[in-house]
Amino acid sequence: MKVRVHVSLKPGVLDPQGRAIHHSLEGLGFSGVNEVRAGRLIELDVADSVTDEALDDMCRKLLANMVIENYRIEKVAT
Amino acid sequence: MKVRVHVSLKPGVLDPQGRAIHHSLEGLGFSGVNEVRAGRLIELDVADSVTDEALDDMCRKLLANMVIENYRIEKVAT
Repeated sequence: MKVRVHVSLKPGVLDPQGRAIHHSLEGLGFSGVNEVRAGRLIELDVADSVTDEALDDMCRKLLANMVIENYRIEKVAT
Repeated sequence: MKVRVHVSLKPGVLDPQGRAIHHSLEGLGFSGVNEVRAGRLIELDVADSVTDEALDDMCRKLLANMVIENYRIEKVAT
């Protein structure tokens, strides 16, 4: 089973990486960009026996920093 | 318009970050994980006037390293 975990900073948390990307896009001449937020994408290939609770647990314990980040689990049909 | 850009390593490219995550998950006692690949998620808030071509251009010029990475553009309904 393929699973995608999207990890993004919570609203209000400063995002220097996103700011740098935004700045660079403007420097390259792209206009119309209002905001950029940078996050992580973690693709897991797990056995079908892995439960939703286990996936949730992985995110809370390792993949996301719950203090400043949100995560979203997306199962991908294979 | 909200746009999500998913950047992931091309198949075959070594992914030490993904390996480290995989190793840590096993260390935490999670079983059934076959593979982990780490990527980036970039969320853009752009004006509606920004074209698909411009988004593609941003990815090719800045957001993704086309030598080792693939990208996927996802428009999010707002």
